[in-house]
Amino acid sequence: MIETYQKRCQARVDQALQTLLATPDPALARLYEAMRYSVINGGKRVRPLLVYGACEALGGKPEQADAAACAVELIHAYSLVHDDLPAMDDDDLRRGQPTTHKAFDEACAILAGDGLQSLAFEILADPLRNPLDAEQRLAMVAGLARAAGPVGMVGGQAIDLGSVGRQLDRTALENMHRHKTGALIEASVRLGALASGCADDTEQRALQHYAQAIGLAFQVQDDVLDVESDTATLGKTQGKDQANAKPTYPALLGLEQAKAYACDLRDQALHALRPFGESAEPLRELARYIVARRH
Amino acid sequence: MIETYQKRCQARVDQALQTLLATPDPALARLYEAMRYSVINGGKRVRPLLVYGACEALGGKPEQADAAACAVELIHAYSLVHDDLPAMDDDDLRRGQPTTHKAFDEACAILAGDGLQSLAFEILADPLRNPLDAEQRLAMVAGLARAAGPVGMVGGQAIDLGSVGRQLDRTALENMHRHKTGALIEASVRLGALASGCADDTEQRALQHYAQAIGLAFQVQDDVLDVESDTATLGKTQGKDQANAKPTYPALLGLEQAKAYACDLRDQALHALRPFGESAEPLRELARYIVARRH
Repeated sequence: MIETYQKRCQARVDQALQTLLATPDPALARLYEAMRYSVINGGKRVRPLLVYGACEALGGKPEQADAAACAVELIHAYSLVHDDLPAMDDDDLRRGQPTTHKAFDEACAILAGDGLQSLAFEILADPLRNPLDAEQRLAMVAGLARAAGPVGMVGGQAIDLGSVGRQLDRTALENMHRHKTGALIEASVRLGALASGCADDTEQRALQHYAQAIGLAFQVQDDVLDVESDTATLGKTQGKDQANAKPTYPALLGLEQAKAYACDLRDQALHALRPFGESAEPLRELARYIVARRH
Repeated sequence: MIETYQKRCQARVDQALQTLLATPDPALARLYEAMRYSVINGGKRVRPLLVYGACEALGGKPEQADAAACAVELIHAYSLVHDDLPAMDDDDLRRGQPTTHKAFDEACAILAGDGLQSLAFEILADPLRNPLDAEQRLAMVAGLARAAGPVGMVGGQAIDLGSVGRQLDRTALENMHRHKTGALIEASVRLGALASGCADDTEQRALQHYAQAIGLAFQVQDDVLDVESDTATLGKTQGKDQANAKPTYPALLGLEQAKAYACDLRDQALHALRPFGESAEPLRELARYIVARRH
Protein backbone atom coordinates (compact mmCIF):
# COMPACT_ATOMS: atom_id res chain seq x y z
CA MET A 1 0.00 0.00 0.00
CA ILE A 2 2.80 2.47 0.81
CA GLU A 3 4.22 1.60 -2.62
CA THR A 4 0.98 2.73 -4.31
CA TYR A 5 0.85 5.96 -2.32
CA GLN A 6 4.55 6.58 -2.88
CA LYS A 7 4.15 6.04 -6.64
CA ARG A 8 1.25 8.50 -6.71
CA CYS A 9 3.28 11.12 -4.81
CA GLN A 10 6.33 10.45 -7.00
CA ALA A 11 4.29 10.89 -10.18
CA ARG A 12 2.71 14.15 -8.90
CA VAL A 13 5.91 15.76 -7.73
CA ASP A 14 7.99 14.52 -10.67
CA GLN A 15 5.57 16.06 -13.13
CA ALA A 16 5.58 19.37 -11.25
CA LEU A 17 9.39 19.31 -11.08
CA GLN A 18 9.67 18.57 -14.81
CA THR A 19 7.57 21.63 -15.60
CA LEU A 20 9.51 23.78 -13.16
CA LEU A 21 12.88 22.70 -14.55
CA ALA A 22 12.17 23.10 -18.25
CA THR A 23 14.94 25.15 -19.90
CA PRO A 24 13.63 28.72 -20.24
CA ASP A 25 16.42 30.11 -22.46
CA PRO A 26 18.94 28.28 -24.73
CA ALA A 27 21.82 30.14 -23.05
CA LEU A 28 20.88 28.34 -19.80
CA ALA A 29 20.50 24.86 -21.35
CA ARG A 30 23.46 23.20 -19.61
CA LEU A 31 22.61 24.62 -16.17
CA TYR A 32 19.01 23.42 -16.46
CA GLU A 33 20.17 20.05 -17.75
CA ALA A 34 22.38 19.70 -14.66
CA MET A 35 19.50 20.77 -12.40
CA ARG A 36 17.13 18.24 -14.00
CA TYR A 37 19.80 15.55 -13.77
CA SER A 38 20.18 16.32 -10.05
CA VAL A 39 16.45 16.27 -9.32
CA ILE A 40 14.69 13.94 -11.74
CA ASN A 41 16.53 10.74 -11.02
CA GLY A 42 14.05 8.19 -9.70
CA GLY A 43 14.54 9.38 -6.12
CA LYS A 44 12.30 7.94 -3.41
CA ARG A 45 10.66 11.33 -2.77
CA VAL A 46 10.34 10.65 0.95
CA ARG A 47 10.08 14.36 1.77
CA PRO A 48 7.33 15.12 -0.79
CA LEU A 49 5.49 12.04 0.50
CA LEU A 50 5.67 13.57 3.98
CA VAL A 51 4.30 16.86 2.65
CA TYR A 52 1.39 15.17 0.87
CA GLY A 53 0.86 12.76 3.76
CA ALA A 54 0.64 15.52 6.38
CA CYS A 55 -1.62 17.64 4.18
CA GLU A 56 -3.99 14.73 3.54
CA ALA A 57 -3.90 13.58 7.19
CA LEU A 58 -5.44 16.98 8.00
CA GLY A 59 -8.07 16.74 5.27
CA GLY A 60 -6.24 18.78 2.61
CA LYS A 61 -6.07 17.87 -1.07
CA PRO A 62 -2.78 16.92 -2.75
CA GLU A 63 -2.99 19.84 -5.21
CA GLN A 64 -2.70 22.24 -2.26
CA ALA A 65 0.66 20.68 -1.41
CA ASP A 66 2.36 20.50 -4.82
CA ALA A 67 4.50 23.63 -4.39
CA ALA A 68 5.63 22.62 -0.91
CA ALA A 69 6.41 19.08 -2.13
CA CYS A 70 8.57 20.48 -4.95
CA ALA A 71 10.30 22.97 -2.64
CA VAL A 72 11.41 20.40 -0.06
CA GLU A 73 12.64 18.07 -2.80
CA LEU A 74 14.61 20.88 -4.48
CA ILE A 75 16.32 21.63 -1.17
CA HIS A 76 17.04 17.94 -0.61
CA ALA A 77 18.39 17.53 -4.16
CA TYR A 78 20.64 20.59 -3.91
CA SER A 79 22.06 19.33 -0.60
CA LEU A 80 22.95 15.98 -2.16
CA VAL A 81 24.68 17.65 -5.11
CA HIS A 82 26.82 19.78 -2.81
CA ASP A 83 27.44 16.98 -0.28
CA ASP A 84 28.77 14.76 -3.07
CA LEU A 85 31.39 17.34 -4.20
CA PRO A 86 35.07 16.35 -3.93
CA ALA A 87 35.64 18.94 -1.19
CA MET A 88 32.76 17.45 0.81
CA ASP A 89 31.94 13.71 0.87
CA ASP A 90 33.62 13.10 -2.52
CA ASP A 91 31.11 10.59 -3.86
CA ASP A 92 31.10 9.35 -7.44
CA LEU A 93 27.81 7.46 -7.27
CA ARG A 94 24.33 8.44 -6.17
CA ARG A 95 21.40 6.05 -6.70
CA GLY A 96 23.71 3.98 -8.94
CA GLN A 97 24.36 6.92 -11.29
CA PRO A 98 27.34 9.29 -11.57
CA THR A 99 26.93 12.22 -9.19
CA THR A 100 26.24 15.62 -10.78
CA HIS A 101 29.86 16.82 -10.67
CA LYS A 102 30.90 13.57 -12.38
CA ALA A 103 28.22 13.73 -15.07
CA PHE A 104 28.87 17.46 -15.66
CA ASP A 105 31.70 19.22 -13.83
CA GLU A 106 32.29 20.69 -10.39
CA ALA A 107 31.47 24.28 -11.31
CA CYS A 108 28.23 23.18 -12.93
CA ALA A 109 27.33 21.08 -9.88
CA ILE A 110 27.96 23.98 -7.49
CA LEU A 111 25.80 26.29 -9.60
CA ALA A 112 23.05 23.72 -10.13
CA GLY A 113 22.83 23.27 -6.37
CA ASP A 114 22.76 27.02 -5.79
CA GLY A 115 20.05 27.46 -8.39
CA LEU A 116 17.89 24.67 -6.97
CA GLN A 117 17.97 26.34 -3.56
CA SER A 118 16.77 29.68 -4.98
CA LEU A 119 14.02 27.94 -6.97
CA ALA A 120 12.64 26.30 -3.83
CA PHE A 121 11.92 29.69 -2.28
CA GLU A 122 10.72 31.18 -5.53
CA ILE A 123 7.94 28.60 -5.99
CA LEU A 124 6.80 28.86 -2.35
CA ALA A 125 6.41 32.64 -2.68
CA ASP A 126 4.70 32.54 -6.08
CA PRO A 127 0.88 32.74 -5.81
CA LEU A 128 0.45 31.10 -9.22
CA ARG A 129 2.45 28.04 -8.21
CA ASN A 130 1.45 28.00 -4.54
CA PRO A 131 -2.17 29.18 -4.41
CA LEU A 132 -2.49 29.55 -0.64
CA ASP A 133 -2.99 32.76 1.27
CA ALA A 134 -0.03 35.08 1.85
CA GLU A 135 0.48 34.20 5.52
CA GLN A 136 0.65 30.47 4.75
CA ARG A 137 3.13 30.99 1.93
CA LEU A 138 5.29 33.17 4.18
CA ALA A 139 5.21 30.62 6.99
CA MET A 140 6.38 28.02 4.45
CA VAL A 141 9.26 30.22 3.26
CA ALA A 142 10.33 30.98 6.83
CA GLY A 143 10.04 27.35 7.93
CA LEU A 144 11.90 25.93 4.95
CA ALA A 145 14.64 28.59 5.04
CA ARG A 146 15.30 27.92 8.70
CA ALA A 147 15.29 24.14 8.21
CA ALA A 148 17.61 24.35 5.20
CA GLY A 149 19.99 26.95 6.59
CA PRO A 150 22.81 27.23 9.13
CA VAL A 151 20.68 26.31 12.15
CA GLY A 152 19.25 23.37 10.16
CA MET A 153 20.55 21.19 7.35
CA VAL A 154 23.64 23.23 6.42
CA GLY A 155 24.61 23.43 10.09
CA GLY A 156 24.23 19.67 10.39
CA GLN A 157 26.51 19.09 7.44
CA ALA A 158 29.08 21.45 9.01
CA ILE A 159 28.89 19.55 12.32
CA ASP A 160 29.21 16.26 10.41
CA LEU A 161 32.32 17.38 8.52
CA GLY A 162 33.82 18.71 11.73
CA SER A 163 33.31 15.38 13.48
CA VAL A 164 35.01 13.02 11.01
CA GLY A 165 37.57 10.92 12.89
CA ARG A 166 36.35 12.21 16.26
CA GLN A 167 34.43 10.27 18.88
CA LEU A 168 30.93 11.73 19.20
CA ASP A 169 28.78 10.64 22.12
CA ARG A 170 25.14 9.83 21.54
CA THR A 171 23.93 13.34 22.41
CA ALA A 172 26.35 14.94 19.96
CA LEU A 173 25.50 12.41 17.25
CA GLU A 174 21.78 13.02 17.72
CA ASN A 175 22.34 16.79 17.64
CA MET A 176 24.17 16.41 14.33
CA HIS A 177 21.38 14.32 12.77
CA ARG A 178 18.65 16.59 14.12
CA HIS A 179 20.28 19.36 12.10
CA LYS A 180 21.48 17.44 9.07
CA THR A 181 18.41 15.38 8.15
CA GLY A 182 15.86 15.92 10.91
CA ALA A 183 15.26 19.62 10.26
CA LEU A 184 14.19 19.10 6.64
CA ILE A 185 12.02 16.10 7.49
CA GLU A 186 10.27 18.13 10.19
CA ALA A 187 9.87 21.02 7.76
CA SER A 188 8.29 18.67 5.20
CA VAL A 189 5.60 17.68 7.68
CA ARG A 190 5.12 21.31 8.80
CA LEU A 191 4.77 22.54 5.23
CA GLY A 192 2.28 19.77 4.50
CA ALA A 193 0.23 20.81 7.53
CA LEU A 194 0.36 24.46 6.41
CA ALA A 195 -0.75 23.41 2.93
CA SER A 196 -3.86 21.77 4.39
CA GLY A 197 -4.87 25.15 5.78
CA CYS A 198 -6.46 23.58 8.85
CA ALA A 199 -3.95 22.29 11.40
CA ASP A 200 -4.61 23.23 15.02
CA ASP A 201 -1.81 23.43 17.58
CA THR A 202 -2.39 19.94 19.02
CA GLU A 203 -2.31 18.39 15.56
CA GLN A 204 0.81 20.38 14.63
CA ARG A 205 2.57 19.15 17.78
CA ALA A 206 1.56 15.54 17.16
CA LEU A 207 2.87 15.73 13.60
CA GLN A 208 6.06 17.32 14.89
CA HIS A 209 6.64 14.39 17.26
CA TYR A 210 5.99 12.00 14.40
CA ALA A 211 8.49 13.87 12.21
CA GLN A 212 11.20 13.93 14.88
CA ALA A 213 10.88 10.19 15.44
CA ILE A 214 10.92 9.18 11.78
CA GLY A 215 13.72 11.66 11.02
CA LEU A 216 15.95 9.96 13.51
CA ALA A 217 14.72 6.47 12.52
CA PHE A 218 15.64 7.26 8.93
CA GLN A 219 19.18 8.16 9.96
CA VAL A 220 19.69 5.18 12.26
CA GLN A 221 18.47 2.89 9.48
CA ASP A 222 20.80 4.61 6.98
CA ASP A 223 23.73 3.84 9.28
CA VAL A 224 22.55 0.23 9.65
CA LEU A 225 22.26 -0.15 5.87
CA ASP A 226 25.74 1.29 5.36
CA VAL A 227 27.03 -1.67 7.40
CA GLU A 228 24.69 -4.37 6.11
CA SER A 229 23.94 -3.69 2.46
CA ASP A 230 26.19 -4.10 -0.53
CA THR A 231 27.03 -1.28 -2.96
CA ALA A 232 24.73 -2.57 -5.71
CA THR A 233 21.62 -2.63 -3.50
CA LEU A 234 22.48 0.70 -1.89
CA GLY A 235 23.20 2.57 -5.14
CA LYS A 236 26.10 4.30 -3.42
CA THR A 237 29.45 3.19 -2.10
CA GLN A 238 28.89 0.76 0.79
CA GLY A 239 30.91 0.93 4.01
CA LYS A 240 31.89 4.52 3.27
CA ASP A 241 30.94 5.81 6.73
CA GLN A 242 33.13 3.20 8.40
CA ALA A 243 35.99 3.82 5.95
CA ASN A 244 35.79 7.56 6.73
CA ALA A 245 35.65 6.88 10.47
CA LYS A 246 32.33 8.74 10.60
CA PRO A 247 30.39 8.40 13.82
CA THR A 248 27.39 6.07 13.32
CA TYR A 249 24.75 4.39 15.48
CA PRO A 250 26.07 0.87 14.88
CA ALA A 251 29.53 2.08 15.93
CA LEU A 252 28.10 3.72 19.02
CA LEU A 253 25.42 1.21 20.10
CA GLY A 254 26.37 -1.98 18.29
CA LEU A 255 24.48 -3.23 15.23
CA GLU A 256 21.65 -5.07 17.02
CA GLN A 257 21.01 -2.22 19.44
CA ALA A 258 20.95 0.23 16.55
CA LYS A 259 18.31 -1.90 14.80
CA ALA A 260 16.25 -2.06 17.99
CA TYR A 261 16.52 1.72 18.36
CA ALA A 262 15.18 2.23 14.81
CA CYS A 263 12.17 0.04 15.67
CA ASP A 264 11.58 1.94 18.89
CA LEU A 265 11.58 5.24 17.01
CA ARG A 266 9.10 3.81 14.48
CA ASP A 267 6.79 2.90 17.39
CA GLN A 268 7.12 6.42 18.84
CA ALA A 269 6.14 7.83 15.44
CA LEU A 270 3.07 5.57 15.24
CA HIS A 271 2.12 6.54 18.78
CA ALA A 272 2.22 10.24 17.88
CA LEU A 273 -0.30 9.61 15.10
CA ARG A 274 -2.94 8.08 17.41
CA PRO A 275 -5.19 11.19 17.33
CA PHE A 276 -5.49 10.87 13.56
CA GLY A 277 -7.83 8.59 11.69
CA GLU A 278 -7.64 6.67 8.44
CA SER A 279 -6.34 9.73 6.57
CA ALA A 280 -2.98 9.41 8.36
CA GLU A 281 -2.47 5.85 7.10
CA PRO A 282 0.16 6.89 4.50
CA LEU A 283 2.24 8.53 7.26
CA ARG A 284 1.96 5.34 9.36
CA GLU A 285 2.97 3.19 6.41
CA LEU A 286 5.95 5.43 5.79
CA ALA A 287 7.14 5.05 9.38
CA ARG A 288 7.04 1.25 8.91
CA TYR A 289 8.74 1.48 5.51
CA ILE A 290 11.65 3.60 6.76
CA VAL A 291 12.78 0.87 9.14
CA ALA A 292 11.96 -2.04 6.81
CA ARG A 293 13.71 -0.63 3.70
CA ARG A 294 16.86 -2.24 2.30
CA HIS A 295 18.26 0.83 0.47
CA MET B 1 28.52 63.32 -0.17
CA ILE B 2 28.09 59.78 -1.53
CA GLU B 3 30.84 58.74 0.90
CA THR B 4 28.80 60.01 3.85
CA TYR B 5 25.66 58.25 2.67
CA GLN B 6 27.59 55.09 1.87
CA LYS B 7 29.20 55.10 5.34
CA ARG B 8 25.77 55.50 6.94
CA CYS B 9 24.36 52.58 4.91
CA GLN B 10 27.45 50.49 5.61
CA ALA B 11 27.16 51.09 9.35
CA ARG B 12 23.43 50.25 9.36
CA VAL B 13 23.69 47.06 7.35
CA ASP B 14 26.92 45.91 9.02
CA GLN B 15 25.35 46.18 12.43
CA ALA B 16 22.27 44.25 11.30
CA LEU B 17 24.48 41.60 9.68
CA GLN B 18 26.61 41.26 12.84
CA THR B 19 23.48 40.56 14.89
CA LEU B 20 22.15 38.14 12.30
CA LEU B 21 25.42 36.20 12.07
CA ALA B 22 26.13 35.80 15.79
CA THR B 23 26.93 32.14 16.58
CA PRO B 24 23.72 30.61 18.00
CA ASP B 25 25.23 27.29 19.19
CA PRO B 26 28.87 26.34 19.94
CA ALA B 27 28.58 23.31 17.63
CA LEU B 28 28.08 25.77 14.75
CA ALA B 29 30.93 28.12 15.69
CA ARG B 30 33.17 27.45 12.70
CA LEU B 31 30.35 27.68 10.15
CA TYR B 32 29.20 31.00 11.58
CA GLU B 33 32.79 32.24 11.72
CA ALA B 34 33.15 31.44 8.02
CA MET B 35 29.84 33.15 7.25
CA ARG B 36 30.87 36.29 9.17
CA TYR B 37 34.28 36.23 7.46
CA SER B 38 32.52 36.08 4.09
CA VAL B 39 30.09 38.90 4.84
CA ILE B 40 31.66 41.33 7.31
CA ASN B 41 34.74 42.31 5.40
CA GLY B 42 34.61 46.03 4.70
CA GLY B 43 32.67 45.48 1.48
CA LYS B 44 31.35 48.52 -0.37
CA ARG B 45 27.71 47.53 0.28
CA VAL B 46 26.60 48.86 -3.09
CA ARG B 47 23.47 46.67 -3.09
CA PRO B 48 22.32 47.67 0.42
CA LEU B 49 22.94 51.28 -0.59
CA LEU B 50 20.60 50.74 -3.54
CA VAL B 51 17.98 49.26 -1.24
CA TYR B 52 18.17 52.18 1.19
CA GLY B 53 18.47 54.68 -1.65
CA ALA B 54 15.36 53.42 -3.47
CA CYS B 55 13.38 53.22 -0.22
CA GLU B 56 14.31 56.78 0.75
CA ALA B 57 13.78 58.12 -2.78
CA LEU B 58 10.14 57.06 -2.34
CA GLY B 59 9.82 58.64 1.10
CA GLY B 60 10.46 55.49 3.17
CA LYS B 61 12.63 55.36 6.28
CA PRO B 62 15.86 53.34 6.39
CA GLU B 63 14.61 51.09 9.20
CA GLN B 64 11.92 49.78 6.84
CA ALA B 65 14.68 48.58 4.50
CA ASP B 66 17.12 46.89 6.90
CA ALA B 67 15.95 43.31 6.25
CA ALA B 68 16.00 43.79 2.48
CA ALA B 69 19.45 45.41 2.67
CA CYS B 70 20.79 42.44 4.63
CA ALA B 71 19.15 39.93 2.31
CA VAL B 72 20.64 41.31 -0.91
CA GLU B 73 24.08 41.54 0.72
CA LEU B 74 23.86 37.94 1.97
CA ILE B 75 23.06 36.78 -1.57
CA HIS B 76 25.91 38.86 -2.99
CA ALA B 77 28.35 37.56 -0.36
CA TYR B 78 27.38 33.93 -0.92
CA SER B 79 27.84 34.33 -4.68
CA LEU B 80 31.37 35.70 -4.18
CA VAL B 81 32.31 32.81 -1.87
CA HIS B 82 31.15 30.24 -4.42
CA ASP B 83 32.56 32.15 -7.43
CA ASP B 84 36.00 32.22 -5.80
CA LEU B 85 36.12 28.41 -5.33
CA PRO B 86 38.87 26.49 -7.16
CA ALA B 87 36.29 24.80 -9.41
CA MET B 88 34.90 28.21 -10.39
CA ASP B 89 37.07 31.35 -10.77
CA ASP B 90 39.79 29.97 -8.46
CA ASP B 91 40.63 33.23 -6.71
CA ASP B 92 42.89 33.46 -3.66
CA LEU B 93 42.24 37.12 -2.88
CA ARG B 94 39.08 39.14 -2.38
CA ARG B 95 39.29 42.75 -1.20
CA GLY B 96 42.97 42.14 -0.41
CA GLN B 97 42.18 39.26 1.97
CA PRO B 98 42.33 35.47 1.51
CA THR B 99 39.08 34.19 0.03
CA THR B 100 36.86 32.10 2.32
CA HIS B 101 38.06 28.73 1.04
CA LYS B 102 41.66 29.89 1.62
CA ALA B 103 41.01 31.24 5.12
CA PHE B 104 38.94 28.14 6.04
CA ASP B 105 38.64 25.24 3.61
CA GLU B 106 36.62 24.41 0.52
CA ALA B 107 33.91 22.41 2.29
CA CYS B 108 33.42 25.18 4.80
CA ALA B 109 33.23 27.78 2.02
CA ILE B 110 30.61 25.78 0.12
CA LEU B 111 28.50 25.39 3.26
CA ALA B 112 28.95 29.00 4.35
CA GLY B 113 27.69 30.12 0.94
CA ASP B 114 24.75 27.72 1.09
CA GLY B 115 23.83 28.91 4.57
CA LEU B 116 24.03 32.59 3.62
CA GLN B 117 21.59 31.99 0.79
CA SER B 118 19.04 30.34 3.12
CA LEU B 119 19.42 33.15 5.68
CA ALA B 120 18.59 35.79 3.08
CA PHE B 121 15.15 34.27 2.53
CA GLU B 122 14.63 33.56 6.20
CA ILE B 123 15.01 37.21 7.23
CA LEU B 124 12.78 38.47 4.42
CA ALA B 125 9.98 36.14 5.53
CA ASP B 126 10.36 36.84 9.26
CA PRO B 127 7.86 39.49 10.50
CA LEU B 128 10.10 40.32 13.49
CA ARG B 129 13.06 41.13 11.27
CA ASN B 130 11.11 42.51 8.31
CA PRO B 131 8.10 44.31 9.79
CA LEU B 132 6.21 44.93 6.54
CA ASP B 133 2.88 43.45 5.55
CA ALA B 134 2.73 39.87 4.30
CA GLU B 135 2.24 40.75 0.62
CA GLN B 136 5.31 43.01 0.61
CA ARG B 137 7.47 40.40 2.31
CA LEU B 138 6.31 37.78 -0.17
CA ALA B 139 7.02 40.04 -3.14
CA MET B 140 10.52 40.52 -1.73
CA VAL B 141 11.09 36.77 -1.38
CA ALA B 142 9.81 36.12 -4.90
CA GLY B 143 11.82 38.97 -6.41
CA LEU B 144 15.05 38.08 -4.68
CA ALA B 145 14.72 34.35 -5.34
CA ARG B 146 14.18 34.97 -9.03
CA ALA B 147 17.07 37.44 -9.25
CA ALA B 148 19.43 35.12 -7.37
CA GLY B 149 18.42 31.89 -9.09
CA PRO B 150 18.91 30.13 -12.42
CA VAL B 151 17.16 32.80 -14.51
CA GLY B 152 19.19 35.45 -12.66
CA MET B 153 22.59 35.53 -11.00
CA VAL B 154 23.28 31.77 -10.98
CA GLY B 155 22.30 31.59 -14.65
CA GLY B 156 24.67 34.46 -15.41
CA GLN B 157 27.54 32.70 -13.72
CA ALA B 158 26.75 29.55 -15.73
CA ILE B 159 26.73 31.53 -18.98
CA ASP B 160 30.00 33.20 -17.95
CA LEU B 161 31.74 29.89 -17.22
CA GLY B 162 30.45 28.48 -20.49
CA SER B 163 31.87 31.40 -22.45
CA VAL B 164 35.50 31.37 -21.27
CA GLY B 165 37.77 31.33 -24.31
CA ARG B 166 34.83 31.87 -26.69
CA GLN B 167 34.07 35.00 -28.68
CA LEU B 168 30.87 36.58 -27.37
CA ASP B 169 29.27 39.33 -29.38
CA ARG B 170 27.94 42.40 -27.62
CA THR B 171 24.40 41.03 -27.31
CA ALA B 172 25.60 37.78 -25.73
CA LEU B 173 27.96 39.65 -23.39
CA GLU B 174 25.17 41.97 -22.30
CA ASN B 175 22.84 38.99 -21.77
CA MET B 176 25.46 37.38 -19.53
CA HIS B 177 25.90 40.51 -17.42
CA ARG B 178 22.15 41.18 -17.21
CA HIS B 179 21.92 37.79 -15.51
CA LYS B 180 25.16 37.70 -13.55
CA THR B 181 25.19 41.12 -11.90
CA GLY B 182 22.24 43.07 -13.33
CA ALA B 183 19.49 40.88 -11.87
CA LEU B 184 20.62 41.35 -8.26
CA ILE B 185 21.17 45.09 -8.72
CA GLU B 186 17.66 45.43 -10.15
CA ALA B 187 16.29 43.34 -7.28
CA SER B 188 18.03 45.62 -4.76
CA VAL B 189 16.22 48.64 -6.16
CA ARG B 190 12.92 46.72 -6.37
CA LEU B 191 13.19 45.50 -2.78
CA GLY B 192 14.00 49.05 -1.64
CA ALA B 193 10.90 50.33 -3.43
CA LEU B 194 8.79 47.57 -1.82
CA ALA B 195 10.22 48.48 1.58
CA SER B 196 9.03 52.07 1.15
CA GLY B 197 5.49 50.72 0.87
CA CYS B 198 4.50 53.46 -1.58
CA ALA B 199 5.91 52.98 -5.08
CA ASP B 200 3.44 53.45 -7.95
CA ASP B 201 3.96 51.75 -11.32
CA THR B 202 5.58 54.76 -13.00
CA GLU B 203 8.05 55.16 -10.16
CA GLN B 204 8.81 51.43 -10.18
CA ARG B 205 9.50 51.56 -13.91
CA ALA B 206 11.74 54.61 -13.58
CA LEU B 207 13.74 52.92 -10.82
CA GLN B 208 13.97 49.78 -12.96
CA HIS B 209 15.49 51.76 -15.83
CA TYR B 210 17.90 53.36 -13.40
CA ALA B 211 18.88 49.95 -12.04
CA GLN B 212 19.40 48.43 -15.50
CA ALA B 213 21.66 51.27 -16.54
CA ILE B 214 23.83 51.31 -13.41
CA GLY B 215 23.98 47.51 -13.35
CA LEU B 216 25.54 47.48 -16.78
CA ALA B 217 27.69 50.55 -16.01
CA PHE B 218 29.05 48.74 -12.97
CA GLN B 219 30.09 45.79 -15.10
CA VAL B 220 31.62 47.83 -17.90
CA GLN B 221 33.61 49.80 -15.31
CA ASP B 222 34.72 46.54 -13.65
CA ASP B 223 36.09 45.37 -17.00
CA VAL B 224 37.83 48.72 -17.51
CA LEU B 225 39.39 48.55 -14.05
CA ASP B 226 40.61 45.00 -14.68
CA VAL B 227 42.68 46.43 -17.54
CA GLU B 228 43.72 49.74 -15.96
CA SER B 229 44.22 49.17 -12.25
CA ASP B 230 47.00 47.35 -10.46
CA THR B 231 46.39 44.41 -8.10
CA ALA B 232 47.03 46.45 -4.93
CA THR B 233 44.39 49.07 -5.76
CA LEU B 234 41.91 46.47 -6.95
CA GLY B 235 42.26 44.13 -3.96
CA LYS B 236 42.05 41.21 -6.36
CA THR B 237 44.30 39.80 -9.05
CA GLN B 238 44.60 42.34 -11.87
CA GLY B 239 44.40 41.31 -15.52
CA LYS B 240 42.71 38.05 -14.60
CA ASP B 241 39.92 38.46 -17.15
CA GLN B 242 42.42 38.94 -19.97
CA ALA B 243 44.58 36.06 -18.74
CA ASN B 244 41.51 33.80 -18.71
CA ALA B 245 40.46 35.02 -22.16
CA LYS B 246 37.16 36.12 -20.65
CA PRO B 247 35.01 38.30 -22.88
CA THR B 248 35.11 41.93 -21.69
CA TYR B 249 33.89 45.32 -22.90
CA PRO B 250 37.42 46.68 -23.48
CA ALA B 251 38.19 43.57 -25.56
CA LEU B 252 34.97 44.00 -27.53
CA LEU B 253 34.77 47.79 -27.92
CA GLY B 254 38.30 48.97 -27.20
CA LEU B 255 39.27 50.65 -23.93
CA GLU B 256 38.23 54.22 -24.80
CA GLN B 257 34.89 53.17 -26.24
CA ALA B 258 34.24 51.04 -23.15
CA LYS B 259 34.87 54.07 -20.92
CA ALA B 260 32.55 56.20 -23.05
CA TYR B 261 29.86 53.50 -22.83
CA ALA B 262 30.10 53.50 -19.01
CA CYS B 263 29.57 57.29 -19.01
CA ASP B 264 26.62 56.97 -21.39
CA LEU B 265 24.99 54.39 -19.10
CA ARG B 266 25.54 56.70 -16.11
CA ASP B 267 23.71 59.46 -18.01
CA GLN B 268 20.83 57.10 -18.84
CA ALA B 269 20.58 56.26 -15.13
CA LEU B 270 20.47 59.93 -14.17
CA HIS B 271 17.85 60.58 -16.85
CA ALA B 272 15.63 57.83 -15.43
CA LEU B 273 15.66 59.60 -12.05
CA ARG B 274 14.32 62.92 -13.41
CA PRO B 275 10.81 62.39 -11.93
CA PHE B 276 12.34 62.18 -8.44
CA GLY B 277 13.31 65.08 -6.25
CA GLU B 278 16.05 65.70 -3.73
CA SER B 279 15.34 62.37 -1.98
CA ALA B 280 16.83 60.46 -4.94
CA GLU B 281 20.17 62.31 -4.62
CA PRO B 282 21.98 59.28 -3.08
CA LEU B 283 20.95 57.16 -6.09
CA ARG B 284 22.25 59.88 -8.44
CA GLU B 285 25.51 60.11 -6.54
CA LEU B 286 25.88 56.36 -6.72
CA ALA B 287 25.49 56.41 -10.52
CA ARG B 288 28.31 58.96 -10.70
CA TYR B 289 30.44 57.02 -8.25
CA ILE B 290 30.17 53.71 -10.12
CA VAL B 291 31.84 55.17 -13.19
CA ALA B 292 34.34 57.33 -11.26
CA ARG B 293 35.58 54.61 -8.88
CA ARG B 294 39.10 53.19 -9.12
CA HIS B 295 38.41 49.83 -7.43
